[in-house]
Amino acid sequence: MKKRIFSLIIFILIITPFAFTQEPKDTEDWSRRPRMILPGENNAPPSDAIVLFDGTNFNEWDGKNGPETWKLVENAMEVIPGNGTLTTKRKFGDVQLHIEWRTPREITGDGQDRGNSGIYLMSLYEIQVLDSWDNETYYDGQAGSIYKQYIPLVNTCLPPGKWQTYDIIFIAPKFSEDQTLKSPGYFTVFQNGVLIQYNVELKGPTDTGEPEYHYHEQELPIMLQDHGNAVRYRNIWIRELDL
Amino acid sequence: MKKRIFSLIIFILIITPFAFTQEPKDTEDWSRRPRMILPGENNAPPSDAIVLFDGTNFNEWDGKNGPETWKLVENAMEVIPGNGTLTTKRKFGDVQLHIEWRTPREITGDGQDRGNSGIYLMSLYEIQVLDSWDNETYYDGQAGSIYKQYIPLVNTCLPPGKWQTYDIIFIAPKFSEDQTLKSPGYFTVFQNGVLIQYNVELKGPTDTGEPEYHYHEQELPIMLQDHGNAVRYRNIWIRELDL
Amino acid sequence: MKKRIFSLIIFILIITPFAFTQEPKDTEDWSRRPRMILPGENNAPPSDAIVLFDGTNFNEWDGKNGPETWKLVENAMEVIPGNGTLTTKRKFGDVQLHIEWRTPREITGDGQDRGNSGIYLMSLYEIQVLDSWDNETYYDGQAGSIYKQYIPLVNTCLPPGKWQTYDIIFIAPKFSEDQTLKSPGYFTVFQNGVLIQYNVELKGPTDTGEPEYHYHEQELPIMLQDHGNAVRYRNIWIRELDL
Amino acid sequence: MKKRIFSLIIFILIITPFAFTQEPKDTEDWSRRPRMILPGENNAPPSDAIVLFDGTNFNEWDGKNGPETWKLVENAMEVIPGNGTLTTKRKFGDVQLHIEWRTPREITGDGQDRGNSGIYLMSLYEIQVLDSWDNETYYDGQAGSIYKQYIPLVNTCLPPGKWQTYDIIFIAPKFSEDQTLKSPGYFTVFQNGVLIQYNVELKGPTDTGEPEYHYHEQELPIMLQDHGNAVRYRNIWIRELDL
Repeated sequence: MKKRIFSLIIFILIITPFAFTQEPKDTEDWSRRPRMILPGENNAPPSDAIVLFDGTNFNEWDGKNGPETWKLVENAMEVIPGNGTLTTKRKFGDVQLHIEWRTPREITGDGQDRGNSGIYLMSLYEIQVLDSWDNETYYDGQAGSIYKQYIPLVNTCLPPGKWQTYDIIFIAPKFSEDQTLKSPGYFTVFQNGVLIQYNVELKGPTDTGEPEYHYHEQELPIMLQDHGNAVRYRNIWIRELDL
Repeated sequence: MKKRIFSLIIFILIITPFAFTQEPKDTEDWSRRPRMILPGENNAPPSDAIVLFDGTNFNEWDGKNGPETWKLVENAMEVIPGNGTLTTKRKFGDVQLHIEWRTPREITGDGQDRGNSGIYLMSLYEIQVLDSWDNETYYDGQAGSIYKQYIPLVNTCLPPGKWQTYDIIFIAPKFSEDQTLKSPGYFTVFQNGVLIQYNVELKGPTDTGEPEYHYHEQELPIMLQDHGNAVRYRNIWIRELDL
Repeated sequence: MKKRIFSLIIFILIITPFAFTQEPKDTEDWSRRPRMILPGENNAPPSDAIVLFDGTNFNEWDGKNGPETWKLVENAMEVIPGNGTLTTKRKFGDVQLHIEWRTPREITGDGQDRGNSGIYLMSLYEIQVLDSWDNETYYDGQAGSIYKQYIPLVNTCLPPGKWQTYDIIFIAPKFSEDQTLKSPGYFTVFQNGVLIQYNVELKGPTDTGEPEYHYHEQELPIMLQDHGNAVRYRNIWIRELDL
Repeated sequence: MKKRIFSLIIFILIITPFAFTQEPKDTEDWSRRPRMILPGENNAPPSDAIVLFDGTNFNEWDGKNGPETWKLVENAMEVIPGNGTLTTKRKFGDVQLHIEWRTPREITGDGQDRGNSGIYLMSLYEIQVLDSWDNETYYDGQAGSIYKQYIPLVNTCLPPGKWQTYDIIFIAPKFSEDQTLKSPGYFTVFQNGVLIQYNVELKGPTDTGEPEYHYHEQELPIMLQDHGNAVRYRNIWIRELDL
């Protein structure tokens, strides 16, 4: 009896180092092979992007007057003030969105009345577009703000008439089956290559008043705002994320 | 008496909509004016960036052999295999880091032995640098992985000999006064403009085995690895974040 | 009574230094906040400039044969000898004008017959364009002269076929309501970065004979001359001045 | 008698057109042949410029501690705060001056306490040097102002740490033999290629209080101010004007 216990102890002493010693191989993860994507060179979209606007047509967009809701100008699309918003025909959830915009070269108006437009993810969550070069307004309403929710980290705007870029990561809010909020939305935004919003948690749709979530679909169109100024957009592409 | 109560009720009915109606002005936030930052054009750093390497010198770096630990080649810094790592003289916490790298044009070795190096935030948390163009290895060890913790979302590598970029947002882990972990670290990474890691939560320092946090300073140097291959780096700049 | 006068004198003696001492703050001028303008880098126009020619089209110009009055050659506009002048569609008064020009590489003719053209502010006031590299003519008719009025300070011309720049400040003549001259015009000109005319007072429109003012509008188009030589212009931008 | 009068009339009729008709040749001016000056390419000085600083030495400058009053850093000269001003060994009157400057990259202080220095023509007439990127102060004291006399036309500043240029035309005040003012001084200034001061008439030496002329020599040294900030200057050249 004693002998068997003794043997067992010996066995455990011998086996333990092997059982608990971690090998580098144990932490190698071969479970998911990342797809190969060719990145774009010289500002071109990567190979897996959906091109929403390449300067030539409105094929991916809807507006109340169809293709003539906005106009094509110098390989860009331009708001026709008063003619209303544009929305994508496709619907999106979590995305990486590249979009370029410029406010009119000629300065008219002040504050919210100068070069105002906006990019609404899911048609509900707005990243503000505004001429915020030498133009003061409430800071949660300037260019790069998540409208009335988050002031941008810095003001990295270029002057009116200059093309600017937003590189946006948008995580869509998710809803449970009973239509209550399961997880909120998030924005990360680079303007002209500079981080201006980092993973800020949306409080609800962006609005002029207090935000509050309400149930909606998992995927919804992107909307570009007509706020009465001839703002232009170009080089718009999007990548659907599977996080 | 009844009359006064009646009057009071009337008064309340009249005043209530005004007292509780929210005006758009109530949600205007004037509390923090974002600093003005001039973005960089044509791949140049923004105006508030600290340039860690501009192709001309090792002024911002330390190595065991000083300036000659690595060498200057065609406006880039190149690992001298066996000579050891480089670390920044400055220490950093939360940052936006831009860094460009290329693995040797001549293919030698396989898997982890081909074009291997790494960028260690705080000298502890590695984003992998490797030739992962047509070169299989465990997926949490390929280029763009948070080493042994997170497989990149996609493989957006270019062939060996091509310059590639990482744009990294790093949120440093924070420790309480009793030196226990207060909040973990996070990585968001774009490779060549494509999102490959989104706000992944670090499990501890990246290691060959299981990660585990241990207390360290709030700011630590960035380290570039010598893993035996003549990997090059260039155009390195960093912005300190105040989130 | 005496006492009160004495007190008054004492009071004045005490108060005087304060009343008349000038504080640095008294000469601080907060009356006009200068607009923010982003200067151009690498020869690009500043952010408030109107681009009159960027190498791609004649949108800002009129000629007797419309867009084909001159021709587009290597991102420049070139005189078609005999086809006539070009004038801007817009009218201008006081301006900062940047314009680049080159005379034909092949030398033909002499004096006024070699590489002759001219830039007419308000279509009336000419700064001469000519090949004045090793080419003698009357000095108030060589490149950089205010034609037949002011000899340039120095001859800082480059050889034929080389691109040269004029940076011009033009102050328009102003006329009273009775159409008499209120204030004359002025030219300041840099050629290739060297001052060649400083605030010279125009004697009237530049002409082959004696100049004499005659009433005209406050703003008039800029005109580029066809003087029979295939002179080229490029990179033309203008800033309206509000002095 | 009649005949002679008749003959005279005939003579006058014949001669008049010749006597009063102006020939184009009459307005050709051959009186002064402009010197040939080779302009500088790629930011180099023109051939007639005196180079006051080329990045390598203080040969043209005096300071209270000689060459070590300021220091050489990366081909620039840098204020050593508290060590005093630098002045040119040479004296100048009317000039074209090219000078480049940058305020410290690290932002410290506000208003007049941020990146303050100044360029004093004749050691008396200051064009202000200041970090005026996103830094408010009295407008006649911001970068590009003629200190406490003229607000710049626009604010065309670049962010701190960026090199900026002034191209200055300075017309010196002239004094009569009885030492009274004969003609005032004038400044014309371009900042980064944009006109910011046009021929503004100096009211006297720039000072913190009201300006007033006092007699001085026709030529005096240029002075660069130590205002307590590590401002840098480089690429300084000057051309003496003979207007």
